[in-house]
Amino acid sequence: MKASILAVAVTLSLAGAAWAATVRNEPIQPLDAPKVTNPAKVELGKKLFFDPRLSRSGFISCNSCHNLSMGGSDNLKTSIGDKWQQGPINSPTVLNSSLSLAQFWDGRAASLQEQAGGPIANPAEMAYTHELAVETLRSIPGYVAEFKSVFGSASIDIERITDAIAAFEETLVTPHSPFDLWLQGDDKALTERELAGYTLFKASGCVACHYGPALGGTSFQKMGLLEQYKTGNPAIGRAAVTGKDEDRMSFKVPTLRNVELTYPYFHDGEAETLEEAVDVMGRLQLGRKYTEQETADIVAFLKTLTGDQPTFVMPLLPPSANDTPRPKPFE
Amino acid sequence: MKASILAVAVTLSLAGAAWAATVRNEPIQPLDAPKVTNPAKVELGKKLFFDPRLSRSGFISCNSCHNLSMGGSDNLKTSIGDKWQQGPINSPTVLNSSLSLAQFWDGRAASLQEQAGGPIANPAEMAYTHELAVETLRSIPGYVAEFKSVFGSASIDIERITDAIAAFEETLVTPHSPFDLWLQGDDKALTERELAGYTLFKASGCVACHYGPALGGTSFQKMGLLEQYKTGNPAIGRAAVTGKDEDRMSFKVPTLRNVELTYPYFHDGEAETLEEAVDVMGRLQLGRKYTEQETADIVAFLKTLTGDQPTFVMPLLPPSANDTPRPKPFE
Repeated sequence: MKASILAVAVTLSLAGAAWAATVRNEPIQPLDAPKVTNPAKVELGKKLFFDPRLSRSGFISCNSCHNLSMGGSDNLKTSIGDKWQQGPINSPTVLNSSLSLAQFWDGRAASLQEQAGGPIANPAEMAYTHELAVETLRSIPGYVAEFKSVFGSASIDIERITDAIAAFEETLVTPHSPFDLWLQGDDKALTERELAGYTLFKASGCVACHYGPALGGTSFQKMGLLEQYKTGNPAIGRAAVTGKDEDRMSFKVPTLRNVELTYPYFHDGEAETLEEAVDVMGRLQLGRKYTEQETADIVAFLKTLTGDQPTFVMPLLPPSANDTPRPKPFE
Repeated sequence: MKASILAVAVTLSLAGAAWAATVRNEPIQPLDAPKVTNPAKVELGKKLFFDPRLSRSGFISCNSCHNLSMGGSDNLKTSIGDKWQQGPINSPTVLNSSLSLAQFWDGRAASLQEQAGGPIANPAEMAYTHELAVETLRSIPGYVAEFKSVFGSASIDIERITDAIAAFEETLVTPHSPFDLWLQGDDKALTERELAGYTLFKASGCVACHYGPALGGTSFQKMGLLEQYKTGNPAIGRAAVTGKDEDRMSFKVPTLRNVELTYPYFHDGEAETLEEAVDVMGRLQLGRKYTEQETADIVAFLKTLTGDQPTFVMPLLPPSANDTPRPKPFE
């Protein structure tokens, strides 16, 4: 019996090696399952990600606009902020965001940790302050104990808060999509139409920007390269960070991973369907008018990019204490 | 080996019987763990409970105001509705709500299923209509398949929607609190202070309304029995349902299960702490001014009512299709 177990183990090990060797040589690489090195920090970050007490109203958490039940986005054109303020831009998915060269559409945050501090203190989003967020968490005994256990001391500051949130977000990777299986050598993972869509996606130049394991997130590109993009949205893109006129309307290329789930599309959320997004991209960025058939093929391919969504137990938040600052939704 | 397994089984079975026999004869009974008879319906109901597409804005779900990370409530005085409208009343916890004689503070819904339809169509809450909710779900292939699998046919109507939500809510029972362990015979489950608090809770009359497995939810009682309750909140209570003047300010007695998590308290959410709530209840309902020590004892007892919170995997919602009605948060 021992011998047969050993035989199975050796076979599996060889199969694993053979599998790795068959990854196709393509401009897109399979996603690796996330490696969790500090599960306690991830667990704390998950709580914070879901905690609306990081907002002034006590109603908005990270998950409100990056909803992990809905592809890590809110599926709205632009988000809803404190007191129902209309957000300026489409909420990008948090899924696979650790693979991006920078965060936000204009890349103004260098890291997930830096990003996490933004919405908390943005008066149009969670409308809190870092000082009040820290004061709030310090007053909650359950958090104090958990910060102590994770960081080795009970002190809570905005760096630790955003560090934990980023640690959780780094686990939000979505491997094992049909396209990944195909990349890893499984010929049956894609239908003929899906494969035709991928072939066209490559041949017509989409892949010039949407490459790498996340199919995007690796460069800033002008929205409306060959033809001007008409929008009522005032965002000017990367120029807001660099101050350079040539960066106007240059945005971080969004990942196409799970794009089936992250509608509506573009920084202004104006494309409601994948068909519309593919059509606009073809015309404005590539000077090409796809036929209905071609668009349908590309859309079929794009839907193969939906991977395993993060599945986890909904966090239970430690209750406030009597001296915890109370939410102020209506003041 | 078989014999020893049998022996263990017999021992466990006897232990179970002995355990049941030791339940103390008290006006409060232990909670039973929920029995799930139709897990597929519960799973569908969980998705619907978390789906903001049942609201006009696409932003508010059942879980927004009955947040299962926070004791099944929103921890706000009154809730936030569509376009940030200020709700009229404190959001009651959904935990153990299946044990109530009726739903809502004024008991205007006879069942959880009837309740579930209310907020969806309330212009100040989710601000949708039942017709649009049905149209939305019918357009989502993932839901159509799941309704078919759960109900035997693919038709979707508001009865099935609310039936599934209610099935999920019926699982949100929180057994195994320290007080339940004590009720079941474990003398060490409560500290001396907690037991003193319970003794006073009984002796001073709290238990006249807060009895049964949920410590409440079984009757309507006047808020401000011996002394008028002063509040700026316009809710008139049960009179809104019965039309009878004697039912003014009569509200469903809230459950005290998990009361540590469901702050702030009362129908107007005006009591921020348990100490304040106990003090007000003592004076207005019982004509008794508890000392600081007595209040602290009762609060210590109340905190033993926090049971096992529902733990479940965060649901993944099926994506909208191209013809799914789009949310209208800003129109």
